[in-house]
Amino acid sequence: MHHIYLDYAATTPIDKRVGKAMNPFFIYKKGLFGNPGSLHTFGQKALSAMDEARKRVAKTLTANHSEIVFTSSATEASNLVIRGVVEVFSKKGEVIPKIVTSSIEHPAVLETIQTLKKEGKIKAHYCSVSEEGIVDVNEVRDALDETTILVSIMWANNETGTIQPIDKIVDAVRTFRESRDGVYPLIHSDAVQAFSTQDINVVRTQVDFLTLSAHKLYGPKGVGILYCADNVSQKNLITPFITGGGQEDGMRSGTENVAGIVGSSYAVQYCADEREKETKRMRALTDSLYQSLVKEIKVEINGSQKQRTSHILNLFVPGHDTLGTALDVAGVAVSSGSACAQRRAKLSYVLGAMGCDEQRIRHSIRVSVGRYTTQKEIDRATQQIIMIVRNKTKGTDIWCPDKATQS
Amino acid sequence: MHHIYLDYAATTPIDKRVGKAMNPFFIYKKGLFGNPGSLHTFGQKALSAMDEARKRVAKTLTANHSEIVFTSSATEASNLVIRGVVEVFSKKGEVIPKIVTSSIEHPAVLETIQTLKKEGKIKAHYCSVSEEGIVDVNEVRDALDETTILVSIMWANNETGTIQPIDKIVDAVRTFRESRDGVYPLIHSDAVQAFSTQDINVVRTQVDFLTLSAHKLYGPKGVGILYCADNVSQKNLITPFITGGGQEDGMRSGTENVAGIVGSSYAVQYCADEREKETKRMRALTDSLYQSLVKEIKVEINGSQKQRTSHILNLFVPGHDTLGTALDVAGVAVSSGSACAQRRAKLSYVLGAMGCDEQRIRHSIRVSVGRYTTQKEIDRATQQIIMIVRNKTKGTDIWCPDKATQS
Repeated sequence: MHHIYLDYAATTPIDKRVGKAMNPFFIYKKGLFGNPGSLHTFGQKALSAMDEARKRVAKTLTANHSEIVFTSSATEASNLVIRGVVEVFSKKGEVIPKIVTSSIEHPAVLETIQTLKKEGKIKAHYCSVSEEGIVDVNEVRDALDETTILVSIMWANNETGTIQPIDKIVDAVRTFRESRDGVYPLIHSDAVQAFSTQDINVVRTQVDFLTLSAHKLYGPKGVGILYCADNVSQKNLITPFITGGGQEDGMRSGTENVAGIVGSSYAVQYCADEREKETKRMRALTDSLYQSLVKEIKVEINGSQKQRTSHILNLFVPGHDTLGTALDVAGVAVSSGSACAQRRAKLSYVLGAMGCDEQRIRHSIRVSVGRYTTQKEIDRATQQIIMIVRNKTKGTDIWCPDKATQS
Repeated sequence: MHHIYLDYAATTPIDKRVGKAMNPFFIYKKGLFGNPGSLHTFGQKALSAMDEARKRVAKTLTANHSEIVFTSSATEASNLVIRGVVEVFSKKGEVIPKIVTSSIEHPAVLETIQTLKKEGKIKAHYCSVSEEGIVDVNEVRDALDETTILVSIMWANNETGTIQPIDKIVDAVRTFRESRDGVYPLIHSDAVQAFSTQDINVVRTQVDFLTLSAHKLYGPKGVGILYCADNVSQKNLITPFITGGGQEDGMRSGTENVAGIVGSSYAVQYCADEREKETKRMRALTDSLYQSLVKEIKVEINGSQKQRTSHILNLFVPGHDTLGTALDVAGVAVSSGSACAQRRAKLSYVLGAMGCDEQRIRHSIRVSVGRYTTQKEIDRATQQIIMIVRNKTKGTDIWCPDKATQS
């Protein structure tokens, strides 16, 4: 029996169509392996493929192609936004700038803000979240002041899938901005986990920066995408931290990962094209998992049941604090938090911010489905979870919040 | 007739064996697509592949596997070294640190140093080079002072292939360092163009940092390799600028490009394994090109004829300042400088530093051969160069330094 993968929020395999699009750029005989910086035919072909890729991605976001920057990861893209915006503002040397963010951002955002804060380069306000993991728009609004240069709130959380009220946040920030100089605060949203299920359109939701990751969208690892509004780059409000040959319009130097970028552009396009259908299908899968479990064992959803990306389900399953490991042994791969934090065995700060206590956090898993997940896989995973929890809770004396309701 | 590629110094196609090594990591069914940060089986397999890749690269350099950091490009790796070392030192806030480099470094090094200098964060000394493009060890030694924290001299130049006296430079810097605190200056060498022909061994040549690029070694674009001596990281002499999940032992965050890294590790290994044979073969090819040309037209080598990596030949071909373009039209791709600089139509600062005047620079091309270059291709390229130069010089009145010797 094959090992069931239910950790699509950590990473996805490459879609065959994406692999097919990438292949020619690897092969000598195809003549597409050139450096886009070279003036000769080989270089021109590579550059032309890059241009097409840029347009392909831009179109899905209703952006201009000049607004798309290819990086090596969403982490690099988020670092570029935060560090790049702070660096430009700090050169003026007037005041220590402030960044408004939330306490549940991905480490790419949170660690970067923490680092800059420790270095004394910025102040930071971490907006709290509700029990469902939702940022309060009023708190964002109240946190804005004349020193605030950036607001960074994720579109959907990677651990719980909870979708943030990003439109309202953008409205609040833009209203504040218009009442000031019209320039700051800039708005960034990490849309890595949102893109596969949310119709992201930068004309409708006027963020200044958006970060995407190809390997969460059936594209290759090693490619991130930054949407950077023309307005921001034209006004020189961001500066790069990887300097050299001046690739990506000076935003990040280094020979472009042409094959990866072309593949990623198709990955993004396929995700956008199939979003509606896939969202429904994945919602049915995660709903089915939850409904089947809740009939048999004690289980609760961490985060919002309604306001969540359909592919992520964060479950509190009391009675088993190594459920993730036990499930893996039983042939089902789920996550016990975000992939980045797992190796350090840190407790989830996301669930912590939502008011979960240590025991609840230890007894929670993240199940995330994707393009290749079948109902059969969900059924088998459901059975395994029930079996493991029942074996573990039967006759053992571990902590359980509500033993009376345990079956 | 196929288009002949003679620009291997700009980028290489992927070796079939490398492509084969990468493929399983893309495919769903192989189960190797996991995130190395995930604790489950999929993650473990990916992590294990990363570990093997790290060991494979380390072995070719006689390094420890803990000394290998995978980045997204050599440019990122060089930025990490320069920015990371400066950042750590600057926190002490004592003096403005100095970096000693050469005037012919790759833009990844030169632009980064220029940027930091403009920002007032460092002082810089740019060592001059001889007519052959060789850095004078004495000038490096004389430039060292108590504020010098980093010496960055490339192993072989990307435009001329000229090999630098890196062993002597390391000796000079280490002697100076031992006479001081034993910590600074640290030594970095950009070995991107050197690795395919030079036996690079960090036990013999004790640099602290070394940067390599996979796509110059028949690996994929989008992977750089940083050798960072254990001693440096253990003493916390470098700090990352891409923060987040803490991958690569905290040196650069972001989900690892597993397929690319595995492929790159094989690319590096194959290059090292086949180096001796390939170096001779490529030397014969470039020598043959030069010898055939010199019999027929006026041509001179820019850089050292002896001290050059065998795959690069920078040629002054008077009489035709758009020879690169004309050759491309005739089906032969060569470079008129480093790929990065070409699109901006800048004159080569490398040739400039060697004392070439504007006319000589405009009339120079870089030919670089590689694993798939055949003698037949060289013969055809030779014929084309001769033909183009003869047609152009015959009866035209363009600048020519020594018309008497033109055939």
